[in-house]
Amino acid sequence: MTTSAGKPLAVIAGYGEGLGEALKKTFENDDYHVVTISRSGGMILADTTDANEVNRAFAQISVLHGTPDVVICNTAMLTIERFFSTTSVRFEETWRSSVMSVFNVAQAVIPMMIKQGSGTLLVTGATAGIRGSKNFSAFSSAKFALRGLSQSLAREFQPQRIHVAHVIVDGILWSPRSHERFPALQRENAIEPNDAASIYLSLAKQPASAWTLEMDIRPYNEAF
Amino acid sequence: MTTSAGKPLAVIAGYGEGLGEALKKTFENDDYHVVTISRSGGMILADTTDANEVNRAFAQISVLHGTPDVVICNTAMLTIERFFSTTSVRFEETWRSSVMSVFNVAQAVIPMMIKQGSGTLLVTGATAGIRGSKNFSAFSSAKFALRGLSQSLAREFQPQRIHVAHVIVDGILWSPRSHERFPALQRENAIEPNDAASIYLSLAKQPASAWTLEMDIRPYNEAF
Amino acid sequence: MTTSAGKPLAVIAGYGEGLGEALKKTFENDDYHVVTISRSGGMILADTTDANEVNRAFAQISVLHGTPDVVICNTAMLTIERFFSTTSVRFEETWRSSVMSVFNVAQAVIPMMIKQGSGTLLVTGATAGIRGSKNFSAFSSAKFALRGLSQSLAREFQPQRIHVAHVIVDGILWSPRSHERFPALQRENAIEPNDAASIYLSLAKQPASAWTLEMDIRPYNEAF
Amino acid sequence: MTTSAGKPLAVIAGYGEGLGEALKKTFENDDYHVVTISRSGGMILADTTDANEVNRAFAQISVLHGTPDVVICNTAMLTIERFFSTTSVRFEETWRSSVMSVFNVAQAVIPMMIKQGSGTLLVTGATAGIRGSKNFSAFSSAKFALRGLSQSLAREFQPQRIHVAHVIVDGILWSPRSHERFPALQRENAIEPNDAASIYLSLAKQPASAWTLEMDIRPYNEAF
Repeated sequence: MTTSAGKPLAVIAGYGEGLGEALKKTFENDDYHVVTISRSGGMILADTTDANEVNRAFAQISVLHGTPDVVICNTAMLTIERFFSTTSVRFEETWRSSVMSVFNVAQAVIPMMIKQGSGTLLVTGATAGIRGSKNFSAFSSAKFALRGLSQSLAREFQPQRIHVAHVIVDGILWSPRSHERFPALQRENAIEPNDAASIYLSLAKQPASAWTLEMDIRPYNEAF
Repeated sequence: MTTSAGKPLAVIAGYGEGLGEALKKTFENDDYHVVTISRSGGMILADTTDANEVNRAFAQISVLHGTPDVVICNTAMLTIERFFSTTSVRFEETWRSSVMSVFNVAQAVIPMMIKQGSGTLLVTGATAGIRGSKNFSAFSSAKFALRGLSQSLAREFQPQRIHVAHVIVDGILWSPRSHERFPALQRENAIEPNDAASIYLSLAKQPASAWTLEMDIRPYNEAF
Repeated sequence: MTTSAGKPLAVIAGYGEGLGEALKKTFENDDYHVVTISRSGGMILADTTDANEVNRAFAQISVLHGTPDVVICNTAMLTIERFFSTTSVRFEETWRSSVMSVFNVAQAVIPMMIKQGSGTLLVTGATAGIRGSKNFSAFSSAKFALRGLSQSLAREFQPQRIHVAHVIVDGILWSPRSHERFPALQRENAIEPNDAASIYLSLAKQPASAWTLEMDIRPYNEAF
Repeated sequence: MTTSAGKPLAVIAGYGEGLGEALKKTFENDDYHVVTISRSGGMILADTTDANEVNRAFAQISVLHGTPDVVICNTAMLTIERFFSTTSVRFEETWRSSVMSVFNVAQAVIPMMIKQGSGTLLVTGATAGIRGSKNFSAFSSAKFALRGLSQSLAREFQPQRIHVAHVIVDGILWSPRSHERFPALQRENAIEPNDAASIYLSLAKQPASAWTLEMDIRPYNEAF
C-alpha cells in the first residue's frame, strides 16, 4: 500500500549484510519505504522461525506502515557438511530457517495482501533447491522444500493477485562474511549483492500479465 | 546381508495396508526376509520421526537379523488443504513424517550398509515432489525436501555402493483407506500396490553398473 | 556496440506483429537502435532457417550498423495437432523454424560478439519446451531442442561474456493473429506483448555478476 | 502380438554392437522373438531417418511376424564438438538421427499397436537430454527434442494402452567402439550393456497400473 509517507512498502525478512543491505538500498533508491526484520540488526527484531514472533512483527508493521506491497524472504542456514556430521537438530534448524520462516511470513502477509488486492512475495532459493549434492543433504533438502512451497503458494494465490517468485541464486553472494567463509573466493566470481537486489526489484515491478515464478542468477564466469 | 535364515534382509519403514503390505509380500515372494517398522501394526513398533526410536529399531534388527540389504522408506502424511487451513503444527508434522523419517533411517542404516559393502535405500516420492500445487503447500514442500535429500544421499554415498532411489508415485495407490478418502476413485484409475511393489523390487535388484536414482510410475489412463 | 548513431544495437530475428513489434518499440524507447529480420515485413528480409540468408543478413547489419549488442530470436511455428495429423515435413519445419534458426543466428553473431567482448542472445521458449503434451509432439519437441541448445550455448560462451537467456513464455501473447487463432481467448488472460518485451529488456541489461539463463512468464490468472 | 512362433515380438531400431546386441540377447532370453533394424548389420536394412524406409521395414515386419509388442529406438549420433566446429549439416544430422528416427518409427508402429490394443515404445535418452553442456549443442539439443517428443507421445497415447518410456542413459555404455572412442574409460566406470538391457526389459513388462515415463541409469561410481 502507499505508506503514510506516500511510498510503497517493502519488508525484508532475514535482513543482514550482503543481500539484505543491498535490497534495502535498492528498494529505497526506487522510492520504497523499507522495513527490515531480523533476529538482530533489523528494524524489527524477530525470529522468523517462530510464528508468534512473525505475527507480532507484521502486526507492528501493519499499524505503523500499513500492508506491505513486497515481502522478501531471505533467511537461510547454509549447512555444508558430511551427512554423518549432520545432527538431526542441525538438519531441522536448516529446514526451519529456510522453510518454516517463509511459511510463517506467508501466513501472516498473504491475507493482508489479498485484502489489499495485490502483493508480491519474493523468496531466495539456491541451486541446491533444484539439485541435491554431496555434503548438502540438509541445505538441499531445505531449499527443495522452499521451492515446493513457493510453487504451491504461486498456484494457490496468483489468481488473487499475489505474485510469488523464487530466485535461484546460483553462486555465492559477495559479503565480508562470505569472503571469510570461502577465503579462496574472488570477488569477480561472486554475485554482487546490488546486482542480485536489482533482480528482486524487477520482479516486484513485473506487470500482472507477465509474472515470473522462477529465475536463476549466476556470475558470467561461473561453471555450472 | 544373508540372514540366519540364509535370505537377504529387507526392512520396510512406514508399513501399512496398501503399499506396505504389498512390498512385504513381493519381497518375501522373492525370498527376502522382511521386517516391518510402524507406529502400530509393524513387527517392530517405532515412530520413525524420532531418531531414538529409529536407532533402537535398527539396533534390534541388527542383532536379530543382521544388516539390511534393502530399506524402504514409505512414511508420509498426505496433507491436502488450503494454505490458510494449514497450521504450522500440521505443516511441520507433514515434513517430519516424510523427511525427518528418512533422515533418521538413513543415519541409522547407511553406516551399517557401508560396513557391509552394499545396501539399497528406496524412498517413496510423489508428483507433489516435483511440482507444487494449490492446496499442497505442506505436502509438496515435504516431498520436494525428500527428493533433495534423496539426491544428496545418492551423490554422497553411491560411490560407497549404497544405492539410493526415489520413486515418484504419480497417482493414488489402491487400498481400502484410499478408497474411503477418495470415494470417486475407480480401481482401474489407481495404482495397484502389487504393481508398485514390483518396481521397488526391480530397483533393489539393479546391477551396480546401471543404478536408477529416479523413476515415476502412474496408471496408463492417468491424465498427467 | 555503439552504432554510428551513438546507440547500442539490438537485432530482432523473427519479427512480426505482437511480440516482435513490442520488442522493437521497447528497445527503441530505451534508446537502442533496432534492426528487424523477417521473411516479410522486417527491415532485412531473410529466412532464418537458411544459414546463407542469416549470414548475409548479419553481414549487412555489421556493415551498416556494427556488431549487435543484443540479438533476440523469436521465430516459431506453433504446430498443435494430433500426432497422426503431423507429417514429417511439418514436424521438420517446426523444428527448423525454432531451432535451426537459432543455430544459424548463433553461428553468425556469437563470433562477432566475442570479438566485441560482450553480447546478449535472448531466445523465446515456451512451456512446451519443459513439458510435452498431447497434440504438441512437433512443437514440444522443437521447443525442448531449443532449450537444450540455449543451455549448451550458455555453458559454452558465458565465460566469454556472451549472455544467453531462454524465456519460457507460458501463455498466449496477445495479438490480432492470436485472437483470431484462439477466439475464446480474453485479453486479460493473455500476455501483453509490451509486458513480455520489458522482460527481454531487463535480461539485456543484467549486470555480468547476475545473469539469468532461464525465467518463465505468465499472466497472473493463468492456471498452470 | 504373439508371433507365428508363439512368442511376443520385439523390434530394435538402431541395432548395433553394445546396447543393441545386449537388448537382442536379453529379450530373446526372455522368450521374445526379436527383429533388428539397422543401416547395416540388422536383420532388416533401413535408414530410420527416412520415413519411407521405416514404413517399408515395418510393413515387412508386419507381414512376416505381426505387430510388435515392444519397439526400442536406439539411434543416435554422439556429436561432441565445439559449437563453432559444428556445421549446420552435422547439427541437422544429429537431430535427424535421434529425433526424426523416433518420429518415423512412432508414426509407423503406434497405429498398429493401437489396433492391437497394446504396445510399448522404449526410447534411449541421455543426460544431455535434461541438461545442456559446453560442446554438446548438437547432441543436447537433439536429446532434449527426443525427450519432448517422448513425453508428448506418452501423454497422447497412453490412454490407448501404448506405453512410452524414455531411458536417461547417464554414462557411457561399454563396447569396443566406446572403448576406442574414450580410451581412458575403465570398464568398471561404464554401463554394462546387459545391465542396461535388463532395464528395458523391465519397462516392457510393467503392468498397466504402474507405467514409468522416465528413469535414469548410471554406474554406481559415477560422479553426477
